[in-house]
Amino acid sequence: MSHNTFGRLFRVTTWGESHGPALGAVVDGCPPGIALSEADIQPWLDRRRPGQSRHTTQRREADAVEILSGVFEGRTTGTPIQLVIRNTDQRSRDYAEIAESFRPGHADITYWQKYGRRDPRGGGRASARETAARVAAGGVARAVLGALAPGLSITGYLVQMGPHRIDRARFDLAEIGRNPFWVPDARAATDWADYLDGLRKSGDSVGAVIELVARGVPAGLGAPIYAKLDADLAAACMSINAVKAVEIGEGLAAAALTGSANADEIAMGPDGPVYASNHAGGILGGIATGQDVVVRFAVKPTSSILTPRRTVTRTGSDTEIVTKGRHDPCVGIRAVPVGEAMLACVLLDHLLLDRAQTGGVRGRIGHAEAQ
Amino acid sequence: MSHNTFGRLFRVTTWGESHGPALGAVVDGCPPGIALSEADIQPWLDRRRPGQSRHTTQRREADAVEILSGVFEGRTTGTPIQLVIRNTDQRSRDYAEIAESFRPGHADITYWQKYGRRDPRGGGRASARETAARVAAGGVARAVLGALAPGLSITGYLVQMGPHRIDRARFDLAEIGRNPFWVPDARAATDWADYLDGLRKSGDSVGAVIELVARGVPAGLGAPIYAKLDADLAAACMSINAVKAVEIGEGLAAAALTGSANADEIAMGPDGPVYASNHAGGILGGIATGQDVVVRFAVKPTSSILTPRRTVTRTGSDTEIVTKGRHDPCVGIRAVPVGEAMLACVLLDHLLLDRAQTGGVRGRIGHAEAQ
Amino acid sequence: MSHNTFGRLFRVTTWGESHGPALGAVVDGCPPGIALSEADIQPWLDRRRPGQSRHTTQRREADAVEILSGVFEGRTTGTPIQLVIRNTDQRSRDYAEIAESFRPGHADITYWQKYGRRDPRGGGRASARETAARVAAGGVARAVLGALAPGLSITGYLVQMGPHRIDRARFDLAEIGRNPFWVPDARAATDWADYLDGLRKSGDSVGAVIELVARGVPAGLGAPIYAKLDADLAAACMSINAVKAVEIGEGLAAAALTGSANADEIAMGPDGPVYASNHAGGILGGIATGQDVVVRFAVKPTSSILTPRRTVTRTGSDTEIVTKGRHDPCVGIRAVPVGEAMLACVLLDHLLLDRAQTGGVRGRIGHAEAQ
Amino acid sequence: MSHNTFGRLFRVTTWGESHGPALGAVVDGCPPGIALSEADIQPWLDRRRPGQSRHTTQRREADAVEILSGVFEGRTTGTPIQLVIRNTDQRSRDYAEIAESFRPGHADITYWQKYGRRDPRGGGRASARETAARVAAGGVARAVLGALAPGLSITGYLVQMGPHRIDRARFDLAEIGRNPFWVPDARAATDWADYLDGLRKSGDSVGAVIELVARGVPAGLGAPIYAKLDADLAAACMSINAVKAVEIGEGLAAAALTGSANADEIAMGPDGPVYASNHAGGILGGIATGQDVVVRFAVKPTSSILTPRRTVTRTGSDTEIVTKGRHDPCVGIRAVPVGEAMLACVLLDHLLLDRAQTGGVRGRIGHAEAQ
Repeated sequence: MSHNTFGRLFRVTTWGESHGPALGAVVDGCPPGIALSEADIQPWLDRRRPGQSRHTTQRREADAVEILSGVFEGRTTGTPIQLVIRNTDQRSRDYAEIAESFRPGHADITYWQKYGRRDPRGGGRASARETAARVAAGGVARAVLGALAPGLSITGYLVQMGPHRIDRARFDLAEIGRNPFWVPDARAATDWADYLDGLRKSGDSVGAVIELVARGVPAGLGAPIYAKLDADLAAACMSINAVKAVEIGEGLAAAALTGSANADEIAMGPDGPVYASNHAGGILGGIATGQDVVVRFAVKPTSSILTPRRTVTRTGSDTEIVTKGRHDPCVGIRAVPVGEAMLACVLLDHLLLDRAQTGGVRGRIGHAEAQ
Repeated sequence: MSHNTFGRLFRVTTWGESHGPALGAVVDGCPPGIALSEADIQPWLDRRRPGQSRHTTQRREADAVEILSGVFEGRTTGTPIQLVIRNTDQRSRDYAEIAESFRPGHADITYWQKYGRRDPRGGGRASARETAARVAAGGVARAVLGALAPGLSITGYLVQMGPHRIDRARFDLAEIGRNPFWVPDARAATDWADYLDGLRKSGDSVGAVIELVARGVPAGLGAPIYAKLDADLAAACMSINAVKAVEIGEGLAAAALTGSANADEIAMGPDGPVYASNHAGGILGGIATGQDVVVRFAVKPTSSILTPRRTVTRTGSDTEIVTKGRHDPCVGIRAVPVGEAMLACVLLDHLLLDRAQTGGVRGRIGHAEAQ
Repeated sequence: MSHNTFGRLFRVTTWGESHGPALGAVVDGCPPGIALSEADIQPWLDRRRPGQSRHTTQRREADAVEILSGVFEGRTTGTPIQLVIRNTDQRSRDYAEIAESFRPGHADITYWQKYGRRDPRGGGRASARETAARVAAGGVARAVLGALAPGLSITGYLVQMGPHRIDRARFDLAEIGRNPFWVPDARAATDWADYLDGLRKSGDSVGAVIELVARGVPAGLGAPIYAKLDADLAAACMSINAVKAVEIGEGLAAAALTGSANADEIAMGPDGPVYASNHAGGILGGIATGQDVVVRFAVKPTSSILTPRRTVTRTGSDTEIVTKGRHDPCVGIRAVPVGEAMLACVLLDHLLLDRAQTGGVRGRIGHAEAQ
Repeated sequence: MSHNTFGRLFRVTTWGESHGPALGAVVDGCPPGIALSEADIQPWLDRRRPGQSRHTTQRREADAVEILSGVFEGRTTGTPIQLVIRNTDQRSRDYAEIAESFRPGHADITYWQKYGRRDPRGGGRASARETAARVAAGGVARAVLGALAPGLSITGYLVQMGPHRIDRARFDLAEIGRNPFWVPDARAATDWADYLDGLRKSGDSVGAVIELVARGVPAGLGAPIYAKLDADLAAACMSINAVKAVEIGEGLAAAALTGSANADEIAMGPDGPVYASNHAGGILGGIATGQDVVVRFAVKPTSSILTPRRTVTRTGSDTEIVTKGRHDPCVGIRAVPVGEAMLACVLLDHLLLDRAQTGGVRGRIGHAEAQ
């Protein structure tokens, strides 16, 4: 991962600002021969698209993706895939004030300090709008995974909004698509709608926790020490705007467990080892066990709020700032498809890395080659 | 970060197994002219060294570091620095059983699945002993930071062991060096000693949470999007053995905050902007604010325990396993100097990256160039 | 350099095919605050543009570059710069035959073998049209070098076309811009025009040798061993389509020299060391001496010719092929601005790398810090 | 390639100085399960070892390689392989003079300028002794290639020494091992011995040209644009000490050819396409054709000579220098095994890269999958 590129072999370079003419991603290292068109990518972008409910920003963007290269006659050629998304609803007039002052909790001040200049319109490069490019790249990754690891599936959802957590006893994956929060708990969906309406009215915002699960990850993906699958997932999630924590499996709770409680005991099943639990979140020593890979990340509340906060101007005066414009009261909601995209990219990158080093051959346990 | 290398410009490649003849690190990209000898590195290794109290493994290793290259007449030459630590107390006889069975919760099984072979003696490459090489590299990073960023200091300590957290009201940095747990709370030190004795007697282990603080990090270090300072810290911490979660600033707790509560309000001070709080943990948009950089990571309990756990053998039989040998009941304790080392390496890497792109020039706020 | 990206800190990722909708480059890691607009880049593209004389392809492309990101109010922001060049004159009907057969000497067959598919229109990704993106990126590099290394200049020119070499006794830099061959020898320009007319009429093509000179390269740029300045220049030049050889300074001729003849003797001048000759081509041990950096590369004749050649079809039949369409009889001519662009990118990358490691501080010789 | 590391997936990091205690290489990314011991590597080092004939330096080094990690029970484990070679015959007293003055044509001056310090003993890091580490790493690469690409063979030899070229009509591979010059021409071997004796007596040195041939390289290895197989070979060869030119296939001579002469015509053979010639040197568009990969590189004469040359001291005085000590009159001789090692490393790296992206599947020509 280097500046605006992530991945080692499946490499994604994103570019573009919130209020520039367009943004996008170059996807390099994609395997050839994969069926791919805009129609394979657009559905994932549609899930992230703003303005789909009253709970997200009212900016109206079609977020229509266009493939400019790397695909010929409906299949990838192995050359770089340029994905472009045009910006159509930039109302830069909203941003006059924040061009002069720095929003507390926002990257306004650090971009300014580092670069001595910044594009203040919509947060410029620091805008969460950059994540649209990630979702598009994730669409490519999913298409490739569909061909190379057909049993693999990726699902993301909210498990916490502000102080409110889901009730795991009511967990129902089918609920995720039925509410605007991607929450697998019907009751939470109803409660959170009211909670968020109240917050929006009070001109405030709130954080959230997203959980990602990858099922069917081949045992053996990952790499030791500094290219650990979980280390890459941690970087990938932490690189998403506003993320302040990443957990794998038990996560922070693992600190409170004893070794005997935390051990995922193993028994021999018909197709290889079977685990009695999944405290590990599907990763041991940086390498996938074949169990579900479970990642969670926490998103802080957006700093663009209507509640006045004290800050300074570029010229060094104390002032107060209120951020008008169209902002998400809970950016965590739209972080769900972004997290899924990052998980897809990381898994594909590791699948290619593993294929390079081991040829995909696995150590056997019993008679079966571990899948 | 690629397999066994981390860093972009200050690049550390570690090598070696727990029970091989030696292990070490090659440190590449080090600035020239920095005063450096073994005496600058050894103290950090001594802090990580096993067997210093009854609370860590009784393996007796001198962990004496030797510099084989890259230093001439007491100063770095800008060429690769090879750091070697010889293994002296390998009792490989302890590991006969785990050569055939896989410890639940340990990387035994995934290394086997991925590579079809593994060095089982002491965990081989997956052993926490690899972290000695990190600590040595961190010693080099600290020497360089001492020259290039003289005001910068790095401190790590335990804030939680098993279910027991420190009392922040009793927080006292001076306590850290006075107890075997690196804990800044005298009462906790006493209580935890008893707790750990009990655990050890019961043949069990427990997790921990480590907090790292870097003071004096220049505002502007970091890079946007995929080379964010916090993304790199997340990867660096998650790459340490047994780590299951990483937090920056408020971390997971940020999810429960409102935007108005989470905003670190800013006022103009004599030397630049001053913040009323530090929910952000010193990083906004992946770039340092100049406040303390605050990172926490959770370490799971070691899986090498005397309590029997069900598992399978390499030939596919169900069995039970008990791990004899000399293991830390709480690996989190010795993770403190390791975490500090990783923080030092990441900060130096970003200092070099920033110097490359911006020349270290900063955007001004008011009359003062932001430090 | 990885697939479609080159550079370590000043990183250029190119994308796009000859007959797709567009092609371009993402330039990442650019220093902030550099004045930049399309007008700074377009002149370099105009030099490479096809159809400027009867001696290059008659394809008519405006090659108008558009900046989609990374520049705000006329200056770079430090974020990725997306450069797009739309393809306007794709006559894909010309390429029906080569979709089925493989041109001898062309990448048609190897792309097919590697990827199992390829975009045959105009050579797809293997087309020399990709070099337009390099030239655009080189324009950015030149703008940055203009700010960070003001005394540095880069010049490229032809020194050989087919069997005809320039006469060094007639060498005149001012001639370069006065003829369509970028050749610094007025007589050669005249002779070569006739030679090339003859070749074109006979339906054949020819190779060339390009020389690049960078003046004012700061002593100390470069890095030892595998990131040597000359190693990077070799890779950069060899990555240009059709290049088969790269030389630094004396190049191949160095093999025939004795050590006493090859030694560039040094004397002390008022501003530092002065060299009596430049056999080294300005680079010793991979690091710039401060003398002119001199690079040459040889370009083979284009394989797209009207002379019939024996080949095979995709289905395995023997056949003959004649490449109609609009091809350069000597691709080496338009390789001049491409070589200059690569040299600019490599030098800037090394300037940033050096700034990172050494801070630009130099060892002194005598009283003067070596410049 | 970054500073002291080369390769993308098969990554070699070398370290160590000429007169330090040891030097070596860490080889990362090696496939697991490959039979490997010191005995597989030592023979290649023995070929490079100094002092084997009167025509190379009389320094007496055993160059005994030791494997410190990454191999267990005789097979690679997939973890980093540390290769160490101890320096035993360092006579640092020979280097007092060159600590104060800079040898013309040597990296003495540029290391000093860049780093402001250097280890002058034997050239420090700039010594050709670093290439011993490359040869050791190349031994690992050969062992892996032996398993993954059994038909692949690599041969290097001298084709020119000073002004004397081999006669291709007398070319005989069997001669290579029979003379101290690795020259495939018995007559040349005799003539060159006399020539070199004369040079040595006169206190001078001379350059050479080395040719490398890889037979049995699978068609499809390589990658487009910036990771071209030939671009990587160019960088790999140019990174070897004293190299000033690299050629692929026809190399520089390609500039003088017409397209019709340069086209390697293709016909259908029983196992796939067959080429009538190999002007391309086995690479088209950066991707292997399956023909022999042919690379040549030119080595300048060593700058450490007994003939006095004018130079300057560190304090800025004009002086003359004579380099005593034990130097190769033609460093090109010992560059043969070094070039072979680099070729082996690059080919293996590309084999892994290709396996990652394409899974090794090839586009078919006719009924046969191109091998």
